[in-house]
Amino acid sequence: MYKLKDHVNHILIREMTFINDRFMLGNDTSFKLYHEHAAKMPIIDYHCHLSPQQIAENIQFRDITQLWLVDGHAGDHYKWRAMRANGVPEEYITGGTKTPWETFEKWAETVPYTMRNPLYHWTHLELSRVFGIDKLLSPATAREIFEECNAKLATEEYRGQALIRKFGVEVVCTTDDPADDLRWHKMIEENPFGTKVLPAWRPDKAMAVEDPQSYKEYLKKLGEAANKNIDSYTDLIEALQTRHDFFASRGCKLSDHGMDTFYGADYTQFEIELIFKKVLLGKAPGPKELEKFRSAFLHDMAVMDAESGWAQQFHVGPLRNNNSKMFKLIGPDTGFDAIGDLPVAAAGHRFFDRLASEDKLAKTILYCLNPKDNEVMMAMAYTFNDGTFPGKMQFGSAWWFLDQEDGMRKQINALSSQGLLSRFVGMLTDSRSFISYPRHEYFRRILCDVIGSDVESGKLPASELDFLGKMVEDISYNNAKNYFNF
Amino acid sequence: MYKLKDHVNHILIREMTFINDRFMLGNDTSFKLYHEHAAKMPIIDYHCHLSPQQIAENIQFRDITQLWLVDGHAGDHYKWRAMRANGVPEEYITGGTKTPWETFEKWAETVPYTMRNPLYHWTHLELSRVFGIDKLLSPATAREIFEECNAKLATEEYRGQALIRKFGVEVVCTTDDPADDLRWHKMIEENPFGTKVLPAWRPDKAMAVEDPQSYKEYLKKLGEAANKNIDSYTDLIEALQTRHDFFASRGCKLSDHGMDTFYGADYTQFEIELIFKKVLLGKAPGPKELEKFRSAFLHDMAVMDAESGWAQQFHVGPLRNNNSKMFKLIGPDTGFDAIGDLPVAAAGHRFFDRLASEDKLAKTILYCLNPKDNEVMMAMAYTFNDGTFPGKMQFGSAWWFLDQEDGMRKQINALSSQGLLSRFVGMLTDSRSFISYPRHEYFRRILCDVIGSDVESGKLPASELDFLGKMVEDISYNNAKNYFNF
Amino acid sequence: MYKLKDHVNHILIREMTFINDRFMLGNDTSFKLYHEHAAKMPIIDYHCHLSPQQIAENIQFRDITQLWLVDGHAGDHYKWRAMRANGVPEEYITGGTKTPWETFEKWAETVPYTMRNPLYHWTHLELSRVFGIDKLLSPATAREIFEECNAKLATEEYRGQALIRKFGVEVVCTTDDPADDLRWHKMIEENPFGTKVLPAWRPDKAMAVEDPQSYKEYLKKLGEAANKNIDSYTDLIEALQTRHDFFASRGCKLSDHGMDTFYGADYTQFEIELIFKKVLLGKAPGPKELEKFRSAFLHDMAVMDAESGWAQQFHVGPLRNNNSKMFKLIGPDTGFDAIGDLPVAAAGHRFFDRLASEDKLAKTILYCLNPKDNEVMMAMAYTFNDGTFPGKMQFGSAWWFLDQEDGMRKQINALSSQGLLSRFVGMLTDSRSFISYPRHEYFRRILCDVIGSDVESGKLPASELDFLGKMVEDISYNNAKNYFNF
Repeated sequence: MYKLKDHVNHILIREMTFINDRFMLGNDTSFKLYHEHAAKMPIIDYHCHLSPQQIAENIQFRDITQLWLVDGHAGDHYKWRAMRANGVPEEYITGGTKTPWETFEKWAETVPYTMRNPLYHWTHLELSRVFGIDKLLSPATAREIFEECNAKLATEEYRGQALIRKFGVEVVCTTDDPADDLRWHKMIEENPFGTKVLPAWRPDKAMAVEDPQSYKEYLKKLGEAANKNIDSYTDLIEALQTRHDFFASRGCKLSDHGMDTFYGADYTQFEIELIFKKVLLGKAPGPKELEKFRSAFLHDMAVMDAESGWAQQFHVGPLRNNNSKMFKLIGPDTGFDAIGDLPVAAAGHRFFDRLASEDKLAKTILYCLNPKDNEVMMAMAYTFNDGTFPGKMQFGSAWWFLDQEDGMRKQINALSSQGLLSRFVGMLTDSRSFISYPRHEYFRRILCDVIGSDVESGKLPASELDFLGKMVEDISYNNAKNYFNF
Repeated sequence: MYKLKDHVNHILIREMTFINDRFMLGNDTSFKLYHEHAAKMPIIDYHCHLSPQQIAENIQFRDITQLWLVDGHAGDHYKWRAMRANGVPEEYITGGTKTPWETFEKWAETVPYTMRNPLYHWTHLELSRVFGIDKLLSPATAREIFEECNAKLATEEYRGQALIRKFGVEVVCTTDDPADDLRWHKMIEENPFGTKVLPAWRPDKAMAVEDPQSYKEYLKKLGEAANKNIDSYTDLIEALQTRHDFFASRGCKLSDHGMDTFYGADYTQFEIELIFKKVLLGKAPGPKELEKFRSAFLHDMAVMDAESGWAQQFHVGPLRNNNSKMFKLIGPDTGFDAIGDLPVAAAGHRFFDRLASEDKLAKTILYCLNPKDNEVMMAMAYTFNDGTFPGKMQFGSAWWFLDQEDGMRKQINALSSQGLLSRFVGMLTDSRSFISYPRHEYFRRILCDVIGSDVESGKLPASELDFLGKMVEDISYNNAKNYFNF
Repeated sequence: MYKLKDHVNHILIREMTFINDRFMLGNDTSFKLYHEHAAKMPIIDYHCHLSPQQIAENIQFRDITQLWLVDGHAGDHYKWRAMRANGVPEEYITGGTKTPWETFEKWAETVPYTMRNPLYHWTHLELSRVFGIDKLLSPATAREIFEECNAKLATEEYRGQALIRKFGVEVVCTTDDPADDLRWHKMIEENPFGTKVLPAWRPDKAMAVEDPQSYKEYLKKLGEAANKNIDSYTDLIEALQTRHDFFASRGCKLSDHGMDTFYGADYTQFEIELIFKKVLLGKAPGPKELEKFRSAFLHDMAVMDAESGWAQQFHVGPLRNNNSKMFKLIGPDTGFDAIGDLPVAAAGHRFFDRLASEDKLAKTILYCLNPKDNEVMMAMAYTFNDGTFPGKMQFGSAWWFLDQEDGMRKQINALSSQGLLSRFVGMLTDSRSFISYPRHEYFRRILCDVIGSDVESGKLPASELDFLGKMVEDISYNNAKNYFNF
């Protein structure tokens, strides 16, 4: 009764490989938008976690296991979570006792079990786009793929800088601590390879007063970098201003903050100084004090960004280091973070209102990790647009756990329904990997599919294809370029 | 490889205009349901913010800028937000210093950038249905559209009452303060134009004790309207009862409350009187007192509605006036409201439980502004159905920020999945505009698309098309008519 | 202009009945996956509320009204809510004063009004699969369907055990209180009918200290079952351990907890003993005490499960007995429960972190009732996978109010996007009804539709249909079988 053969023939005739030119493009308009407009645009990766040192040293990866599963900077915790869920013992993952092949083999066994997970798409996009391999990874193909990848990785074309160039990346913004001397960025600038590598300002550690011991160690490091003793909150802000100026002089154009939620409490400067003193004395602040301190600190950081003409990013919502046993064994960022569900609306609006009232509101991008917050964050961003720059306040790309098709579609729809998709600054990688740039392709294909479907169903006028093509180009590249003023 | 020409031809051959008879109707069953059943039904706009004065005076709009962007009652903050986001300076929006053409031109520049936003659909639906203009608004067409609209607006057929009649509106319920003398409603009744214009009861100001100064001024006004000194909470309720009776005598059939969340705290009458006295003495109540006061006030309002046989509406979830700089400059309802994320479940259930226990639960419609609450509000409503009236407890239409295709589909799906879509009282405009009635068409098309798609995919039986056609008619018109007993 | 006739012909030619072999299967690949892989798999109903006594006694239903609307164990509150919403007076529903025909007739009147609600699908699936009736239920067909069902119910093939066998159910896990003597399970074991009926451990009453009077009565009952006086919290845990061992000896393999949210507070053993003493003295604990007590109790239950090698289930999110008037009249589980919106993330992670740190984390399934929690619960589950068993930590099936197509698709997508759909233990009935097994068919069809659509749109490789077929079989049956070790 059904005609599967016909249908499979149809698919097989149309294209022989999984990652083909129709991938994620559900209709002809999407196809046209992607191939005529999106595909050709360069990449601006305005937020990622690539190691400046690895870029500067033009890293050569030992093998695909290092590159994919345990690279020098930090491992790929997405894959690690999938492997643990698939019953792979930790010794194969972070244990360090297995050979690269043994670890890779376990990943290859896991891959078919990731069908419908973004890892399945990312894996095959990376094999195809980076290595030119169109085979599906599975136990049957693991050995040959392992060897082919490793052979390629041994060549010059597969060193770090070449991998970045391969994807037409114009700008990379790394994520850097204010105490960082940015020596690697300098080295890159002095030895250019075709992609600008700029620092981005991430002062999370300068806010982390909840652990006074570590905090005091950090202050020492920061003070040294700023050439200033930090004995008060005022000193702290002055030291940070010094570093902020230094970052600006090195081409920094944007900041980033990782937060569990927003902070918009009332406080006085005197209260903040008292809390700071308490921390210097080794005492952890209480919850109300933490709220006040974070409110003040984030406010003062935001003012700095506004005065420097930078854009600021807020990544809101993770609940980190939830598995304390594993944290003790292998530390942070190893796959034991999750999604929090704190309220964000009231404090967020108070925070931005204060800045708007003081005329100190920088261009701002809000990212949420809990999709329940999509519409709230989108409304919040658009409540503070002031007509000074198109798309000044942004609801940012689907992020981390949401960086997948379902998450992207929800983000695009929440943004479109309340605001101007046309002004969206688009995708970033937020990745530690040198080969995650195909995620830009992935995002662009989904974006084109969304828009193309609307055209084909008559929700957008087919007569406006030129404008829509331009809009795709803008979201892929032009908007970010103009927004960050690179 | 792709065949865009064929596809565009297909679209172009099928229909020459963007807003065509297939608009939003994805298949033949949807088409049939809309054109044979939905399109012919009159409109009952049971909740809107039209100005009774403007209706009574049969307003003639100076030009399309006044009608669309800065009408006499209050502007269209949806468009204002879009313009601000598109980089249009405030002087063109609310500044009052620019000519109507200059403001219109900025809006026309913004329109193409709203693709995928409901404004793009609303704009072209209104141009098509109100003005018979099928061109797309853009800088290229701005001047001719401006002039054509203005020429039409200068005619009798484009005055306020004719605009309402044009869309087959049988009943309009405005939104009125208890202290209002309803003189404009009386004038309309005495000079009928074919559409009933009824008042609706919105006692938000009578609950607003958080600002004692304004509240006391309001009490004076209310006391004068009720011919009673208000020196106690008991006085307040008596005065409101007097006004409630007056509203009922003027044909009022429903109330409405705007709230950040539900209030269901325990309280004693004595406590409420004490809080009220405190407010009369000029002191703002604390958070616990506010919670008690609101719990009592909303309860007593609900009892009044039940005893009068009215329906009650609860609009839950906004976070208002978040941009205090702009609030000081241009006041409320100017595009600086957003979506809150307070919990709603526990307090909401306590509130309705008390009323159910006292046999004082009126017909009720619950609207949420945060889509995270869709399923919670829907479950809450259906927990209090009591078999006395089909569809007594309603989960209301997608509202404000959610009044768009994505929001409507989610509302329809949450309602369908837990309850009886067939009993839904359907769409309202909630609008300040005389030409927002095409949003009823928009809603009906989406409703028909949802149902038609289910038929075509076999999820609803094709044999029951007559019942489904009747269901579409009911949701479009009959259910509201029976529910409110107009 | 439209061609509905063609389209209806197409549907009518293809299949004559509503519930046909294409039902819910939107394309050929879905069709193949369902009919070649899913349909043939047996059912493991690892969580339901069937009455062991009714199974043991091989209940013969008096008529379809008893079976569908007021069966011996508890009624179908889904149908009751729909009837109340449709304006059916309570006397026809739970009143007990109407004849079975009168009640059935009201349900038949309601059924057409449930279109788009899962009840419409469930009703016709059950008529088709259980009774072989393909007519649609409505007032026109009510009488003949009533009589045909009743005639069949009078035969041996329609007694309780035969109904279970009819659907290929290999294992049923009931839901049992620790004080239960499991006599009916014993009787079933001694008189096997082809389906294993195992107890499952649900100690909700042993945690219900919020009502000291009922709690003390329960302790007496539990103490008698365990042959032990319960004078302290330590006694309580020892008594429960005795019963846990007894349940294990009767084949129990999993536990279940019904909770409004998670509990992960800090506490000392001494504090818990004090709270327990207070309850024994008849005093209700305060909110902080309740939080501590529940944190301790649930932790100790979880340790028991881990030590026995059981799986544990957490059903999180209902707000129960919200209509106190109806609660007084007809008790719990009668259709007046709803969806809560408490936060779940922080406490949930603390709870599981403690267990993971102690190496006492059993296989775990997390279910949420509020869809806002889908992504949070999914992330939480996967944060505690440890590589010891594939799919150890599970995000469970869409449940109760979410047990419908929209809810299932969201659950499947949240699971897929963050984890391994391939390792999902799949569907359960959670039902009190002997004929709700078609819901497994319903789930499997939707699952196949999801996967098949991904294949046909190129998001999953068509070349991997064998693996995907196996994956469908695993989710339908094998995963549950291996997971629970039946």
